[in-house]
Amino acid sequence: MEQLRQRLLEIYHLNSILAILGWDRDVFMPCEGAQARAAKIAYLSGLLHQKIISLDSDGLLSKLKERLGQPKVYPAKKLPTEDMAIVRETWRSFKREKKLTEDFVKELAETTSQAQMVWAESRKKADFKTFLPWLEKILHLKKKEAGMLGYDKSPYDLLLDYYEPGMTAEKTEKILNDLKISLSDLLKKIKRSKVKIPALKTKNIFSTEKQIDFNKKVAKKIGFNFDCGRMDQSVHPFCVGFHPNDVRITTRYDERDPLYSFGSTIHEAGHALYEQGILPRYFGTPLGEGVSYGIHESQSRLWENMIGKSFAFWQHFYPILKKEFPTPFGEISLEKFYCSLNSVKPSLIRTDADEVTYNLHVILRFEIERDLMEGKIAAKDLPEIWNGKMKKYLGVKPPNDRMGILQDVHWAMGGIGYFPTYALGNLYAAQFYDKMKKDMPDIEKKISGGNFGEIKSWLGENIYSKGKLQSADELTRAITGEDLNPKHFFSYIENKYTEIYKL
Amino acid sequence: MEQLRQRLLEIYHLNSILAILGWDRDVFMPCEGAQARAAKIAYLSGLLHQKIISLDSDGLLSKLKERLGQPKVYPAKKLPTEDMAIVRETWRSFKREKKLTEDFVKELAETTSQAQMVWAESRKKADFKTFLPWLEKILHLKKKEAGMLGYDKSPYDLLLDYYEPGMTAEKTEKILNDLKISLSDLLKKIKRSKVKIPALKTKNIFSTEKQIDFNKKVAKKIGFNFDCGRMDQSVHPFCVGFHPNDVRITTRYDERDPLYSFGSTIHEAGHALYEQGILPRYFGTPLGEGVSYGIHESQSRLWENMIGKSFAFWQHFYPILKKEFPTPFGEISLEKFYCSLNSVKPSLIRTDADEVTYNLHVILRFEIERDLMEGKIAAKDLPEIWNGKMKKYLGVKPPNDRMGILQDVHWAMGGIGYFPTYALGNLYAAQFYDKMKKDMPDIEKKISGGNFGEIKSWLGENIYSKGKLQSADELTRAITGEDLNPKHFFSYIENKYTEIYKL
Repeated sequence: MEQLRQRLLEIYHLNSILAILGWDRDVFMPCEGAQARAAKIAYLSGLLHQKIISLDSDGLLSKLKERLGQPKVYPAKKLPTEDMAIVRETWRSFKREKKLTEDFVKELAETTSQAQMVWAESRKKADFKTFLPWLEKILHLKKKEAGMLGYDKSPYDLLLDYYEPGMTAEKTEKILNDLKISLSDLLKKIKRSKVKIPALKTKNIFSTEKQIDFNKKVAKKIGFNFDCGRMDQSVHPFCVGFHPNDVRITTRYDERDPLYSFGSTIHEAGHALYEQGILPRYFGTPLGEGVSYGIHESQSRLWENMIGKSFAFWQHFYPILKKEFPTPFGEISLEKFYCSLNSVKPSLIRTDADEVTYNLHVILRFEIERDLMEGKIAAKDLPEIWNGKMKKYLGVKPPNDRMGILQDVHWAMGGIGYFPTYALGNLYAAQFYDKMKKDMPDIEKKISGGNFGEIKSWLGENIYSKGKLQSADELTRAITGEDLNPKHFFSYIENKYTEIYKL
Repeated sequence: MEQLRQRLLEIYHLNSILAILGWDRDVFMPCEGAQARAAKIAYLSGLLHQKIISLDSDGLLSKLKERLGQPKVYPAKKLPTEDMAIVRETWRSFKREKKLTEDFVKELAETTSQAQMVWAESRKKADFKTFLPWLEKILHLKKKEAGMLGYDKSPYDLLLDYYEPGMTAEKTEKILNDLKISLSDLLKKIKRSKVKIPALKTKNIFSTEKQIDFNKKVAKKIGFNFDCGRMDQSVHPFCVGFHPNDVRITTRYDERDPLYSFGSTIHEAGHALYEQGILPRYFGTPLGEGVSYGIHESQSRLWENMIGKSFAFWQHFYPILKKEFPTPFGEISLEKFYCSLNSVKPSLIRTDADEVTYNLHVILRFEIERDLMEGKIAAKDLPEIWNGKMKKYLGVKPPNDRMGILQDVHWAMGGIGYFPTYALGNLYAAQFYDKMKKDMPDIEKKISGGNFGEIKSWLGENIYSKGKLQSADELTRAITGEDLNPKHFFSYIENKYTEIYKL
């Protein structure tokens, strides 16, 4: 086991060095550096591939796997829990990786690294055509990947499984369809409501500097440790951890709307609290990561929505926001602000969407990427398909591809299968939050008083610190006593919006 | 040769990834990330060591070396110049690296990475004691390194040779002593001169933002390509190239003195022009670097001093500086400004020193680091020794260690042997500049007109583009027709200051 740990340490060094190269590319790299950077990323990805493959070159991993898999046969040799989890997760990565070739891994890494720069440029110019050949190449590679991995029903399955172990296209469709039905119903009710909440659109300019200042205050207050992290700007907001002591978040700013950056910031800060909260000694093993992308998203969505869009939260922060931007907030009551913040209005940008329509954005992306992978639609038709689905599910039409098909970075980074985890994250978040409220009946008082310490501790103890020790199912059962149950999300959302819209 | 190139490409990827990790550490990394970063750097340094060693694991490098070393025996197989240079430089690194152990390389990398963060903290608090144990450990390791490398006369020789191939403690001492004598003489004459140039000290505050703006304008104007580079802030100014298309410079700011950051900026921009000007196809081979540290310094010092402190330069830039800072420059004539900029006054900080006293700072550091390596003095006595030499050579006494022994990052990064290259850089710069003036008789007119294109082209053609094709000696002879000759520097400095001080 000690030998395996030594090999894994190398793998996690390479992993986090790759993350640093990616962070720098997306935040600070000069534009002309893209090609050279992609070459370095490809080289290191190839090296990482070799290291993963050679984990079992002398049968070390297989032997440990055998001891883990047959605890009844060798009860005396049964591995302790931590080691079991390490072997389980290592085997999972190894099994996947050995089906891929080094050339393929390098080509995918190089392509997606460059594609992200092309995407940023293409998004800026709202020009899908520039991005199209890159997207086509990525889809070609992802299909090739699915072929190498081997799949039973859909080539989409094993891509999804990468982000959410055990999840399939079929299961996802079931969950998302239930969501689609309930949310569409709720949306109809809200549309019929007599309560009309006007948007908070003003003609003011909110300086980026002041927004950064406010966002940093919020991030710090909820527990983000700036001695162990940074906050910067990038085209698409993200969070990345190189180690629990070095976790970076980014956001993007709109000088006409301070809540645009605020939403991303608290979302990414939620991810960052998770990363900063993992036990440092887990670094260098698969345990030094979040359980799954869905569980990770639950941590960002919980802070962004359940807490960050609650009345109690703004009882504490609205006076601070007012101080930063006396115009227009000095003239707007907390109650009015709260309602506007939670106004439900089908809109164009996912990261900016309200809680009711958000999952519809995810569903749209899920359907598109699954159909792309299954060869039912072609990349060149995407703007049309996207706009059609936006019209159908949300009743809005993007004025250009920047506000439409080009808004998210995920496909450019090869992250097909990633989007469903956002919806899963919402479900997990509501379920965890229900339990947290039971354990902490005065949680609203804490929030309105700006006391986030116990909330962070609760999350730290139950989720953050454990890293990837358990699977998503195990963790959910351990915390809430039941399996993933969408009813928590439905009742959360129904209660909240029934009150706001007096349904 | 193709096989060697493939292996070298890996080495240069690792090298530049290490440079990215170092840049991030010094510019943006949160403080608590130091230990984890040092571990990654150590790991990658070990990997790099392995890759260098294995260049010859099957005798490939030796075989190529043989063909290179005996051109008369195998005339038909003589390698072309470019390949010859690659093999020569690869052999040089290989020969050195194979004498070191992987454990040693990792320990040195980890120690110096952490030491740089400790140094920054220690400098901030002007507290040498915090840094002392780290410096002692570094010295211990550097002595160990010298022992492993094996030396003839001084353990300092092979450290020096790393930065300036072929240079020894003895040769350096001879050059620096000549400099010490001539410069001390000139300094005495200047002190006796009736011309007294008051310092440009004002009580104004020069906002960092505006200084950055001005510095960026200058860097851009002299040819720094911001599409292929960045400019940031760090505790100690530096330049690092990850590829000709991604070259980064940093500087540090003092809101009481805009010329403090200006000097560093144009200095680092000089390095950056070199890095950006190397042929991109040399990347991945030893040719994709500067000839030597001395030659690299010649490029920074040439822009910083010969050009950046000339009257012609400010004929163009002074109006721009005035516009940025009407107070106090609106009230100060160009002539007065030029004299102040070149006023000779023994001072505390090397990077801020005038051209006459600058080399005395270097000599002091050379003597100290050589004596440390030869065991003649101990690290714990350094503040006293430093202050004594400052008094003796420059007649000033640091009020604290921040302004004294702690001012430079070099020893923290293990860069013992680096300092003399600054003095060599001054000598090379003057010699190259004399030739450039001969080739471009109207150079002053070009400079005062803000036309730097031809200067950059001259440097690009003669120096930048060639990378490490030639040795420092070969390059110097190829450009100027003679060996390194300090008389160019003496006459440059004597003419300039005779005029300013009417000696």
